[in-house]
Amino acid sequence: MAKGRITIPTDESFVEGTKKIAKLWGADAVRDCDGVKLPKNPREIADKVYNVYFVDRGNHEWAKNNPDEWQHMFVMTPFITATEETLTVHLMDTFYAEQVKPDFSKEALKYLEVMDRTTGELHTEWTADEENGNIIINNAKPFHQYTVAFLMISLWHPVHMYNYITNGWNEPHHIMYDPFYPKTNKFIRKNLQKWCKDNPDCNVVRFTTFLYMFTLVYNQKGKERNVDWFGYNMAVSPRMLDAFKEQYGYKMRAEYLVDQGYYNQTHRIPTKEYKDYMEFVQNFVAETVKDLVKITHENGKEAMMFLGDCWIGAEIYGERFKELNLDAIVGSVGGGVTVRMLSDVEGVKYKEGRFLPYFFPDTFFEGNEDNAVAELNRNWITARRAMMRNPLDRIGFGGYLSLAAKFPKFIDRAAEICDEFRYIYDTVKTQKPYNFAKVAVLNCWGKIRSWMCNMTAHELWYQQSYSYQGIYEALSGLPVDVSFINFDDVKAGTLKGYDVVINAGDAGTAWSGGDNWKDEKVLTEVRKFVYNGGGFIGVGEPTAVQYNGKFFQLSDVLGVDKECGISLGEDKHNVTASREHFILNNIECPVDYGEDKKNIFALEGTNVIDIVYSERFKRNYSVGEVKMAGNAYGKGRSFYITGLPYSAENAKLLYRAILWTANKENMDKRSYCTNPLTEAHFYGDRYAVINNTEKEQTTEFYDINGKSQTFIFKPYEIKWIKVTGKN
Amino acid sequence: MAKGRITIPTDESFVEGTKKIAKLWGADAVRDCDGVKLPKNPREIADKVYNVYFVDRGNHEWAKNNPDEWQHMFVMTPFITATEETLTVHLMDTFYAEQVKPDFSKEALKYLEVMDRTTGELHTEWTADEENGNIIINNAKPFHQYTVAFLMISLWHPVHMYNYITNGWNEPHHIMYDPFYPKTNKFIRKNLQKWCKDNPDCNVVRFTTFLYMFTLVYNQKGKERNVDWFGYNMAVSPRMLDAFKEQYGYKMRAEYLVDQGYYNQTHRIPTKEYKDYMEFVQNFVAETVKDLVKITHENGKEAMMFLGDCWIGAEIYGERFKELNLDAIVGSVGGGVTVRMLSDVEGVKYKEGRFLPYFFPDTFFEGNEDNAVAELNRNWITARRAMMRNPLDRIGFGGYLSLAAKFPKFIDRAAEICDEFRYIYDTVKTQKPYNFAKVAVLNCWGKIRSWMCNMTAHELWYQQSYSYQGIYEALSGLPVDVSFINFDDVKAGTLKGYDVVINAGDAGTAWSGGDNWKDEKVLTEVRKFVYNGGGFIGVGEPTAVQYNGKFFQLSDVLGVDKECGISLGEDKHNVTASREHFILNNIECPVDYGEDKKNIFALEGTNVIDIVYSERFKRNYSVGEVKMAGNAYGKGRSFYITGLPYSAENAKLLYRAILWTANKENMDKRSYCTNPLTEAHFYGDRYAVINNTEKEQTTEFYDINGKSQTFIFKPYEIKWIKVTGKN
Repeated sequence: MAKGRITIPTDESFVEGTKKIAKLWGADAVRDCDGVKLPKNPREIADKVYNVYFVDRGNHEWAKNNPDEWQHMFVMTPFITATEETLTVHLMDTFYAEQVKPDFSKEALKYLEVMDRTTGELHTEWTADEENGNIIINNAKPFHQYTVAFLMISLWHPVHMYNYITNGWNEPHHIMYDPFYPKTNKFIRKNLQKWCKDNPDCNVVRFTTFLYMFTLVYNQKGKERNVDWFGYNMAVSPRMLDAFKEQYGYKMRAEYLVDQGYYNQTHRIPTKEYKDYMEFVQNFVAETVKDLVKITHENGKEAMMFLGDCWIGAEIYGERFKELNLDAIVGSVGGGVTVRMLSDVEGVKYKEGRFLPYFFPDTFFEGNEDNAVAELNRNWITARRAMMRNPLDRIGFGGYLSLAAKFPKFIDRAAEICDEFRYIYDTVKTQKPYNFAKVAVLNCWGKIRSWMCNMTAHELWYQQSYSYQGIYEALSGLPVDVSFINFDDVKAGTLKGYDVVINAGDAGTAWSGGDNWKDEKVLTEVRKFVYNGGGFIGVGEPTAVQYNGKFFQLSDVLGVDKECGISLGEDKHNVTASREHFILNNIECPVDYGEDKKNIFALEGTNVIDIVYSERFKRNYSVGEVKMAGNAYGKGRSFYITGLPYSAENAKLLYRAILWTANKENMDKRSYCTNPLTEAHFYGDRYAVINNTEKEQTTEFYDINGKSQTFIFKPYEIKWIKVTGKN
Repeated sequence: MAKGRITIPTDESFVEGTKKIAKLWGADAVRDCDGVKLPKNPREIADKVYNVYFVDRGNHEWAKNNPDEWQHMFVMTPFITATEETLTVHLMDTFYAEQVKPDFSKEALKYLEVMDRTTGELHTEWTADEENGNIIINNAKPFHQYTVAFLMISLWHPVHMYNYITNGWNEPHHIMYDPFYPKTNKFIRKNLQKWCKDNPDCNVVRFTTFLYMFTLVYNQKGKERNVDWFGYNMAVSPRMLDAFKEQYGYKMRAEYLVDQGYYNQTHRIPTKEYKDYMEFVQNFVAETVKDLVKITHENGKEAMMFLGDCWIGAEIYGERFKELNLDAIVGSVGGGVTVRMLSDVEGVKYKEGRFLPYFFPDTFFEGNEDNAVAELNRNWITARRAMMRNPLDRIGFGGYLSLAAKFPKFIDRAAEICDEFRYIYDTVKTQKPYNFAKVAVLNCWGKIRSWMCNMTAHELWYQQSYSYQGIYEALSGLPVDVSFINFDDVKAGTLKGYDVVINAGDAGTAWSGGDNWKDEKVLTEVRKFVYNGGGFIGVGEPTAVQYNGKFFQLSDVLGVDKECGISLGEDKHNVTASREHFILNNIECPVDYGEDKKNIFALEGTNVIDIVYSERFKRNYSVGEVKMAGNAYGKGRSFYITGLPYSAENAKLLYRAILWTANKENMDKRSYCTNPLTEAHFYGDRYAVINNTEKEQTTEFYDINGKSQTFIFKPYEIKWIKVTGKN
């Protein structure tokens, strides 16, 4: 078995142990980790040596001497109700004094906005009281609500703050300095140059990360107040705003950035102004990072981007990403979606995933070995599904290797996984996996948020999201080609390149699309696509906006709409479910709909696949709520489901829905397992047939020609089946 | 025990039996019923003799001879997708050929509208093909959807049709002729005059009803297609539309009436145009019915209105209702709400309720006596709660008395109920029941839809409605004064007359209020009201419209808002429920929230009373969904709950919420029962303490001074407690 493609953490106190494990796992790279130092002569252990590097934090001397170039963020106070004509707003009331302080400079106040939130109008009558940290709103209307949006100066990098507090560190706070300001702009280049010289052992600079942090704001009690892993509100400063105006010809108003208090979070339908601002930041980040990478290369090192923290502006699916000329990207892996988010990136030489569990004492304590192994297996199995379609180039771990070393079962299982990973990699990279359909996920973001749909904070679970995230988790390991497109792509006529379009999300979100569904061009393009034989899959509240007599604007295509309480007088007669359908073959009903959607009804002619009646009143006039429906539309087909949290069954269901809506029932039972807990992949010269569970499984497996045989699997097993001849 | 106030059905074949039961029940009125005739000399049985009378149907000769004056209705085809530039729409495709036929006359086609539903624009290029019953839409845009809205001629009164089909009748179809046309306008007067002369025994003309039927349209299979008990779409004709234009100065467009296919159903936020049209019809109905009542009176008879069928335009809470000069109104009673809907009407001498069960073979068949008695008790007990606050003047039954006579237990129980009713009536009518608070229900309709909120078809259960209807059912029997107000009332400054305002409904409905909550005048009036000490109760999606950074526009008052998937990045920290609150005293948690609402979160400072965490992921970051919350706002208070279906517990909970939000905790345990299945009413000189169940109950009863004693009740019992002295 060949070695390589594995990164392990190490430290100076665990050299011999590291060597042993490196050999067992076939590790060819070592990395440092918070709180530890690499051994001397690390290249004796591994070919690659990673070192963390911070571009614009960590140099306390520089920070201290250049307070005029500290970073900023744009924030908004809560809505405050006026009860008199004068309203005094203490800006810090809901913010954390150690993280931020209001910028009362003339340059900053120029961008401050008081809004009357009851009318939505700008309120220009206010004065600043710097001494008390207040904005005094004059001539307020009693019982109107007001907000103040303004620039804060960042005093502490929020991830450093989080780690500092969590781990009880005692070191200077990391202050962020802003490369948009001239002194810092020069400094960061010089500093990297120096760092490279000072760290000759390092041959991979692990940028953690570049210039601007994603939105992460704490409240007055030091608890998280706002988070948006995609947010640009900390990539802002008076100087940047001035430059924006010069370049774009209009003022980037506070309101465009604070967005009524929604902060343009990724779930919001992006405005033109916010997209302009994103572009503006991306341009600056590209120009700057390009230089940093050049310096790195000139010093004979590779440049690796950590996907997280200060990654804002370095959009990995953005148009300028390739220009950064990075060698590698690394990110943490929580499942199939995060694998594909990394592995589908173009423009870098290799992509690496950091797997779970972290080698930290919260998992690696005495007596917890079985749990640690279980977490490793869970992480690997969910990630492996995606690896079968498009593998990462490298995998690795983080934490203290000496802790892991105390768990021999863990070490052995990880060794097996490393070998399995390399085998998958070698196979899948040389043989393009066979795809049965071309699927486009349609939302407001499209390509730039590939695999990032319905995400708030990276890998955190939200009750409102998991029933949609299941779609992407399922797709990450299905034998289909997946693209992410937006409404401009639809209008540009790109749909004809796909077999099936998926639209999934809550009404009014970027994922469903909101007002884009009022656009007759969008509607006619999708209708034409389906009418001519395309497939459409809607989940939750697809195509939803109350307009022109409908809630689901493509209710004709979907065959369903939502009763919003204003059409109760319209009788619903299509209330009997068939529960027999191509899509449900091998799937047990009732399906897990996750958070589900209520009040969905079927139009006449729609095939209701599943419906739920009110348990409270099982009367004749309880019309029920549709949960799944199929619909024929011209030569095309549509499938609707209320929610699709990830499970093996739901992944199989989605796959069957894709085949059905794509009019590809004839591709059923081709490179296919009947047992939903098992899956098959076809690579031209061989199949991988996999058991996604920790238990033995039996399945009927059908090859690409539909010839079947029964397989019995060991836990987690992959069977590699060579194609022996043509049937 | 005094007799009277009771109406019974009878027929010519059951004279002696009728006399016996009339005596036992104290009946002083007899009525006819579909399919039977009154006995000869009915006044020998009772003082009052009711006869059904139809104003503009039933005279087949007239109908046959005047097809130019048949009634119309405005309807709309479904949305039809064009796939080519010409789209042929067969108008009858979704309608019932026995009920309607398209009116292709020039006068009617003038009002026909083709709409492009994809753009919302009027499409003027079409031709009529009367021979084939088609409208041909020319120059259509492929993959746009179109509708045709047009006038149908009514061929059959839909209630007659329903009864005819259900009961297998064989008689001519009742065709409705339109009094808006000149010949019929004269005829209905002459005909009533003649009828009065021909029916000397009758001294109460039971109008069933007046001129225009509520919206009730059948589909091509003869099944109900659209129903709206409040709808004006069958009160329309070319002549009426022409007259409207003359009076109001603008054309009543098809679109104003078909309303994108929602048909202005009562759940819709009423438009100015629809309200104008309602006023127009009410004016005509008032002028016409006034005359009919005059004729009735001139013939020495009373005029009684049946609340149902052709009641459109005779709005019982409308401004012109008193002018009709009616003697009485009668309607069916399904519970407390329908009692109050009738008993709160002003401008008639007496109001009567028809109780359940009907004496029909579906209930009165051999072996079903206990069920018949149970249904009688259920109906009486729910209605009785409302009777304790404002009783009807008369109660009665319908069907075949001879069937009921076969069930002696039923006859005896009904006799008890008749006596109990008379006792309640005599007591409550002479002593105003004590009210502990003045409550205003705020929605788009206000007074004109008093007690009619969230109703579609009279008394039919809808899954989307019952969680709101419970509020009104609860209110109907609570010791509070109830008014129904609209947003104009709010803007006129009337709130100060109330203790508590209730806003309840789904976002975008007439009940919640939709865009009215964008009106700064409305917002400031309500805020001011609460801030100065008023109470606010929100149920479901109160004050809800996505606008200016909020979903609940009064989230500051309510202390809660809804997470619509666009603010997930805003941390919710107020996630712990107290479950101890004044409102929950004697109430068991979890409360029944009915259909419930998901994704409600509390603002900082709000008192979360109940919260539910996702059972799927009980993790630290599962923030939960708020179900009940209380909030202080200035001197006032607010209470929020996700839904309030009717139950004894929920009625008690609502009462306690009213006291709490009204700052009247000191009125707790005054004329009060601790057991939610029992209730108390105070009438100045006595209390009624009632058991609302079929079982024995024990409760602590507190008198108006807070002095308590324990009561043990028999099933259904009312204890009348005289006030013996001052404490």
